[in-house]
Amino acid sequence: MKYSKLFPKTIKQTPQGASLISHKLLYQAGYIRESTAGRYYLLPLAMRVFHKIQRIIKEEMDATGAQEMITPVLHPKSLWEETNRTSSAGFELMSIKDRSEFEFVLGGTAEEMLVDLVRKFQISYKDLPFNLYQFSTKFRDELRARGGLLRVREFVMKDAYSFHISEEDFKIEYQKMMDTYSRIFERMGLKTYIVESDNGYIGGEYCHEFVVESDAGESRFFIDEKGYIAHEDVAKFIFESITTDEKMKPAEEVLGKGIIGASELAKFLNIPVEKTTKTILFETNKGDIVAAAIRGDFDINEVKLLHAIGADSLKLASEETVKEITGAEVGYAGILNLPKEVKVFIDESCASRTNFEMGANKTNYHSININFGRDLPYPKQFYDFKLAKDGFIGPNGLPLIAKKGIEVGNIFQLGFHYSSKMKGAEFIDEKGKPQPYYMGCYGIGLARTLATIVEVSNDEKGIIWPVSVAPFQVHLVGLDLENAEIKSKAEEIYKHFEGAGIAVLYDDRTDARAGEKFADADLIGIPYRVVVSRKTGDKLEVKKRGESETSFMDLTQLIEKLS
Amino acid sequence: MKYSKLFPKTIKQTPQGASLISHKLLYQAGYIRESTAGRYYLLPLAMRVFHKIQRIIKEEMDATGAQEMITPVLHPKSLWEETNRTSSAGFELMSIKDRSEFEFVLGGTAEEMLVDLVRKFQISYKDLPFNLYQFSTKFRDELRARGGLLRVREFVMKDAYSFHISEEDFKIEYQKMMDTYSRIFERMGLKTYIVESDNGYIGGEYCHEFVVESDAGESRFFIDEKGYIAHEDVAKFIFESITTDEKMKPAEEVLGKGIIGASELAKFLNIPVEKTTKTILFETNKGDIVAAAIRGDFDINEVKLLHAIGADSLKLASEETVKEITGAEVGYAGILNLPKEVKVFIDESCASRTNFEMGANKTNYHSININFGRDLPYPKQFYDFKLAKDGFIGPNGLPLIAKKGIEVGNIFQLGFHYSSKMKGAEFIDEKGKPQPYYMGCYGIGLARTLATIVEVSNDEKGIIWPVSVAPFQVHLVGLDLENAEIKSKAEEIYKHFEGAGIAVLYDDRTDARAGEKFADADLIGIPYRVVVSRKTGDKLEVKKRGESETSFMDLTQLIEKLS
Repeated sequence: MKYSKLFPKTIKQTPQGASLISHKLLYQAGYIRESTAGRYYLLPLAMRVFHKIQRIIKEEMDATGAQEMITPVLHPKSLWEETNRTSSAGFELMSIKDRSEFEFVLGGTAEEMLVDLVRKFQISYKDLPFNLYQFSTKFRDELRARGGLLRVREFVMKDAYSFHISEEDFKIEYQKMMDTYSRIFERMGLKTYIVESDNGYIGGEYCHEFVVESDAGESRFFIDEKGYIAHEDVAKFIFESITTDEKMKPAEEVLGKGIIGASELAKFLNIPVEKTTKTILFETNKGDIVAAAIRGDFDINEVKLLHAIGADSLKLASEETVKEITGAEVGYAGILNLPKEVKVFIDESCASRTNFEMGANKTNYHSININFGRDLPYPKQFYDFKLAKDGFIGPNGLPLIAKKGIEVGNIFQLGFHYSSKMKGAEFIDEKGKPQPYYMGCYGIGLARTLATIVEVSNDEKGIIWPVSVAPFQVHLVGLDLENAEIKSKAEEIYKHFEGAGIAVLYDDRTDARAGEKFADADLIGIPYRVVVSRKTGDKLEVKKRGESETSFMDLTQLIEKLS
Repeated sequence: MKYSKLFPKTIKQTPQGASLISHKLLYQAGYIRESTAGRYYLLPLAMRVFHKIQRIIKEEMDATGAQEMITPVLHPKSLWEETNRTSSAGFELMSIKDRSEFEFVLGGTAEEMLVDLVRKFQISYKDLPFNLYQFSTKFRDELRARGGLLRVREFVMKDAYSFHISEEDFKIEYQKMMDTYSRIFERMGLKTYIVESDNGYIGGEYCHEFVVESDAGESRFFIDEKGYIAHEDVAKFIFESITTDEKMKPAEEVLGKGIIGASELAKFLNIPVEKTTKTILFETNKGDIVAAAIRGDFDINEVKLLHAIGADSLKLASEETVKEITGAEVGYAGILNLPKEVKVFIDESCASRTNFEMGANKTNYHSININFGRDLPYPKQFYDFKLAKDGFIGPNGLPLIAKKGIEVGNIFQLGFHYSSKMKGAEFIDEKGKPQPYYMGCYGIGLARTLATIVEVSNDEKGIIWPVSVAPFQVHLVGLDLENAEIKSKAEEIYKHFEGAGIAVLYDDRTDARAGEKFADADLIGIPYRVVVSRKTGDKLEVKKRGESETSFMDLTQLIEKLS
């Protein structure tokens, strides 16, 4: 491809308000443009990388025996109603009616579609297992899209769904997919952590995210030195409760105007922070109001809390709701004297304390010297919804190390979740009896993976593509092209590369200076920069992107090296 | 791939109400399933064919210098408003709002999106021309979907858009695309007619459909023996008007209850059919009512009529409207005494007649002996909206031969249609002045192409895939597999094929009889059936699909032949 023909060209400006390096570089180098927030054009350079990523995924998936297919983009809404997911998918669905008022949702994931397909056939135990996958556009009506490709509202995902006669059989596939994903990301030059994660569907240990460490990421996880890796949603740690032989003191209300936050409050009241209590109000998807109380030095893990409550989703109660329920401004909530309809969940960290503090449900007031069994009934049950923190002691007895990263893939068991809810989702077993199938699910976001590679592989000059996913292998920079001899030599070299099956981007511009051409080559990030100019004579000047040494080779040598 | 692992297996039943052979065969052989009307799953076998078709298109497009990219599926509705296409796209748009009430349409074609992309850049004459293409899902909210893949509501299309400094430059690309499309379809084994078609955008001759002759098709076109090929919308033919030296007779109204249709009426009135007149009422997209009158022996070409009217779209007036406007039941409309708001268009075939017939706008009545200048004002203008028919004499002086076919691709000029309507859709010319770019557009429907191949390449036993698009090259049928020796031989042959890079579907079932296996092989339609059994000894039995002779070869020979 000649650079003069490439659409578009690089530009100097960065996109407005861009904070991610991948967003800036992909924009400047002409890989992407935004249409509306969170919806991107992938331009010709990006498309080439996209295809390489897709090819790697496809090769590895096919090698496992998984079979590619594709579902429609518009899913009948009735299927999502069948599994009760219209309100509990964990992301916002967009729905649409056709001219005959038939209602669809824009596919966010495709479990229902796959089950609805498979149940059209009479499947026997002999047909199982199989793993069906697709590359398809997914839609998530996210509240906020970040600039760039890391969190968008429309994206192509490789999603795979496996069907099994039993959990045991599923586990074999799960391990196969874990190995396959590791290989896929490794081939793209990405080092991934396989992070144990929350499986909202059925709990259990068969749920992992593939995470690339990066400050640009939104996945928080913990590791230890012995190889423990777990998402903050599920990270285990040792919790030591506090006991004292203190006597109960009389409860009282203390004025502490504007004193909000556990450590500030502890200082103000002159008590250890462990004696303070955080009470946070949530609303569940069913509209229930929940008050969750935890020791002031801990934070709430919303995923654990969700499981404790048994709801499908949870959000912070609005300011108005907090005022209405507690009768106080936000910041002074406690579990004393709450209306009966509020469901109270208390973390185990609150137990075994004496004379603790708690919001008074009265603006500017804090209750102190509170005790279970006296000021409050002793709870029937305590829960565990504490969030892990850096330095907490993990299950191996070692300190947890907090990490941040980008989730590029995930694998998880679905179990009987869908096959038990969708009628006819069954296979015929050896005895001729229908049985629900056991399922698993495996996803990779393609454009997010592309952006992740840029996040972790760049320098101050631009992108550094690994060879396996680079849009071209060689960036041929022609200099002194006003000289007819050099020009024809450069053209010839260009054709030789193409003839040898080496993808080459040839900067054939005659109106750009050498400096510009080099800067563009660095920005675009193709692995090998090859210069032909008056100075290079019979040889070619070769430089690997990201390295500083140049070497001189003749064309045959170079083609051999690159083939 | 082992057949035992393939999802799904063939079945005997045909889909309910299926009339298309491609629908039946693709269903039975397990290539497709319908989700909701007009929305299909492409299953693993179909996906393999789809990829081959896509690969051929991509190779040929890339060879021309066209560049692949992709736009979001959701297009901002505002763009379609900018070009006034929300009501005039020629197909039904589906629109959808996101959580912030921002309105999108589901992409039907992508002209606006491409222009909106390109205008984000400062394009100079040096950057032009370029041709950008994508493989993307398109949505058409069709009133009726036919079963199968020929007319659906959701489909992947290769759509390309070229940008030029001038019409002259566009013409070069147009010719290149015409040649490229011919090669693309030829490589898929499809014989296409390049049919001159209607270019709603700007008229002119740069608009062609690629049509595969088939009774299953909905494109009607004409050819002659000298190579004239034109869509019925634009087909030219020689029209001879009728003149007589008859005297005018007194006009009268004749009762002819239930006499509807030109030839029936002519017989009833005992006049030549040329003296009858068809008057049809239409509604335009703007809500105008139009009466179109044409000589009884002709039919109306709605596309020509549309151009005569200058509207964006047209539909038959409803029964109620006809009654309201004419005061009569449907079948008795004429252009006498119509309300003033009705716009009347009269075909040239109506001119130069004396004493002609016309509906009386009175149920069961027909006016006869009508004459322009006496009963009706002599029209200021006659139009030409006659439909061509088989046997009419075409522009080469030869009879037109009517054909039917499936449109698999189309190419057409857009001219300045979009660049003149969308602000900033311009390039900087040599003098530094902004100028609108000249555009062209080029489409291929992938799944429709797939189904078309099946329509024209099948027999009573099943599909006959051309090698270039076949899902597998070899269908290896293992017989007598209960014999361990044969089984291990078959497995070995299977591995040899795979090792040689020959895609093979291996029927490894032990619970299916030979007859079943052969029937499945014929149904699925893979080019080479290779049998290994007790009988085949050291050789393999090879049969080409669609042929009846079998031959015996050894594996090395066969692999050589197929490589």
